[in-house]
Amino acid sequence: MKSTIVTIGDEILIGQILDTNSQYISQALNRIGVVVAERTSIGDSAEQILATLDRALDRSDIVVITGGLGPTKDDITKHTLARYFNSELIYNSNEGEFIETLLARRGIPFTELNRGQAFVPECCTVLHNAHGTAPGMWFEKGGKVVISLPGVPFEMKHLNDDTVVPMLSSRFALKSIVHRTMITSGIPESLLAEQIASWEDNLPAELHLAYLPAPNVVRLRLSAYEVDGQSVSRTIDKEFDKLKQIIPQAIVGFENATVEQLVHSWMVENGKTLSVAESCTGGALAAKFTAMAGASAYFNAGVVSYSNEAKRDILGVNMEDIARYGAVSEAVAIQMAEGALRAGGSDYAVSTTGIAGPTGGSAEKPVGTVWFGVATPKGSFAVMKNCGTDRSQIIDRAVAHAIKLLYENL
Amino acid sequence: MKSTIVTIGDEILIGQILDTNSQYISQALNRIGVVVAERTSIGDSAEQILATLDRALDRSDIVVITGGLGPTKDDITKHTLARYFNSELIYNSNEGEFIETLLARRGIPFTELNRGQAFVPECCTVLHNAHGTAPGMWFEKGGKVVISLPGVPFEMKHLNDDTVVPMLSSRFALKSIVHRTMITSGIPESLLAEQIASWEDNLPAELHLAYLPAPNVVRLRLSAYEVDGQSVSRTIDKEFDKLKQIIPQAIVGFENATVEQLVHSWMVENGKTLSVAESCTGGALAAKFTAMAGASAYFNAGVVSYSNEAKRDILGVNMEDIARYGAVSEAVAIQMAEGALRAGGSDYAVSTTGIAGPTGGSAEKPVGTVWFGVATPKGSFAVMKNCGTDRSQIIDRAVAHAIKLLYENL
Repeated sequence: MKSTIVTIGDEILIGQILDTNSQYISQALNRIGVVVAERTSIGDSAEQILATLDRALDRSDIVVITGGLGPTKDDITKHTLARYFNSELIYNSNEGEFIETLLARRGIPFTELNRGQAFVPECCTVLHNAHGTAPGMWFEKGGKVVISLPGVPFEMKHLNDDTVVPMLSSRFALKSIVHRTMITSGIPESLLAEQIASWEDNLPAELHLAYLPAPNVVRLRLSAYEVDGQSVSRTIDKEFDKLKQIIPQAIVGFENATVEQLVHSWMVENGKTLSVAESCTGGALAAKFTAMAGASAYFNAGVVSYSNEAKRDILGVNMEDIARYGAVSEAVAIQMAEGALRAGGSDYAVSTTGIAGPTGGSAEKPVGTVWFGVATPKGSFAVMKNCGTDRSQIIDRAVAHAIKLLYENL
Repeated sequence: MKSTIVTIGDEILIGQILDTNSQYISQALNRIGVVVAERTSIGDSAEQILATLDRALDRSDIVVITGGLGPTKDDITKHTLARYFNSELIYNSNEGEFIETLLARRGIPFTELNRGQAFVPECCTVLHNAHGTAPGMWFEKGGKVVISLPGVPFEMKHLNDDTVVPMLSSRFALKSIVHRTMITSGIPESLLAEQIASWEDNLPAELHLAYLPAPNVVRLRLSAYEVDGQSVSRTIDKEFDKLKQIIPQAIVGFENATVEQLVHSWMVENGKTLSVAESCTGGALAAKFTAMAGASAYFNAGVVSYSNEAKRDILGVNMEDIARYGAVSEAVAIQMAEGALRAGGSDYAVSTTGIAGPTGGSAEKPVGTVWFGVATPKGSFAVMKNCGTDRSQIIDRAVAHAIKLLYENL
């Protein structure tokens, strides 16, 4: 079963917002065995919506649309869908009452514009949106399905998970899509490809291999579309077993497990605790851990010691060392890690201190220079790495490197 | 001048990665006056690439493609482009030498696969990629341009900014695209639309209004495509002046300024300093500030006090109050903010303590309950807000609310 995802909104085409809805829906459709053949983003233009619908229905069985369902004049998706399906907009009193109650609960009056949101094309099945004022819609035409969802990510997600996914699963007899990923580290992509070339050449025809390189890591993904999921999973297990023989030292994990998830699991399984001290990463390192449910089991404390005084007062860094070696130095990185260990009363700690730029660099310590400190029950050390030239890139890379360093020293 | 952006990669269609390249290129093209008419994501399939190119060139003058230029077998964009433009792949010795040198610097041997990356279609102009092993390519056909860039975001950005944008600007006589945004807060979208209805109805025809609702905020964007930029900017100034008369109290900023950018500017302009103390937001609040260049001018310290002991030891929170009222309470939120003020030696501080879930909730304090503390030169206080039901949503909303609370109390 093939699908097309269409996201509608000028704000997407001008780059004012990042389209995260497409990714979310792609994952959800893949999970239930619906192949996403194409994704398209178009503007709030009736002409474009009509042409895109025609083309999408031409090559796919399911079309999922998000966006353009707001109460204001710039949102035209619903009227255009009514036109496409040659259907009248009629007032749905259930939806109308719900919207009125929802707004009352938030202390917002029910305006004519909100009343307009309860009008839906007569031919559609209404998908009740429990979290907002724009109902979703389900259309059928020639055995194919068009689904329209609000663009607000939170509302879209609930409607997708609670309503669309179950309805699609019962409406179509779906086969399985299987994606399995092995994470490798330490071998550059082209060398890795050479080392596993004969394994790759002998893969069963139903399996497709993809290389996904990222900083420090190459992911190898095996995919199979519209198959018997259980039997293909067993085939993939066997192929991954063979791969383990070829590159045993390079395999660091499976699926989309991030290195922070590996640290998380290790801490929970071993009953150990963690603290972090950050300068250039400014909280982003702590946030990686605390984003994971259950982090409170091991994550004791993070300190964002941006000022030198904070490094001294909270982490106990020696001001003379800061004066002598600079805040971005081996000595300070080690003292920050040890200070985090102490302040957080934890078993492990990792620290970052660097120059995120755009200013603050020098010939000796250019923008991108980052020192990382690691404190473990076995002792402390620090290493330096250049993390790039752009502020957000430096922060991201420094966070990734700090987590990797920690993981290697557990 | 109309364009289509095409991102290629199965990893996009299955949702394994988030497509951020499309947004980046959209912004860049808009800035130089190229209208993005459509964005499309397709798989690593020759058939799909060829069909998409045909269609994209049909309705646009410029097609920008990213992805599929890696050294491994799953990447087929370059071969497919050579086929599309009926051109031989030839070895480019400049690129070959560059790739060899680049890899040598990283201590990676130059393999046959890397050598393959120096082969480019004879008919294209090579766009030298100073940051990776995959050169970009520029094709012309019937007065239209097709550009192929690597999918690695960092490499794509450099090639786009340093090479593609200047080349497009000199190749085409481009008009301007103007987007200007006013940020409002405090009036729900539908009420706002009613209050400004007659202003909206009387906008000059060249201006298009869009409503962009987000938590606590509605952005109003005026856009004009392929116009005289200076004259349209003056028109928009006048229209925004009129709007200021209609909803003076609701306007909180302009353009895409986020509330954290407003706080940032205020701190810098007023020479004040800030610290934060976080529990449930786990570093994400500090990271919002430290992501902005120049934050070190005012951001002193952040404390992620996840454990109760860290709240006591680093922030001086009273353990008896934690026992009596719980860690998620008014008393603790205030003490955390005051502790951050003290530990960071700053003028202002804001704190978060809440239940991010999925576990840890109770009937009295369900998941999503967050207390926010604010400490200012005028004194301290705390407020409570329910931030939702999903961990990442709770963290995001709590961060947004903490920053808004702080901004309102500067």
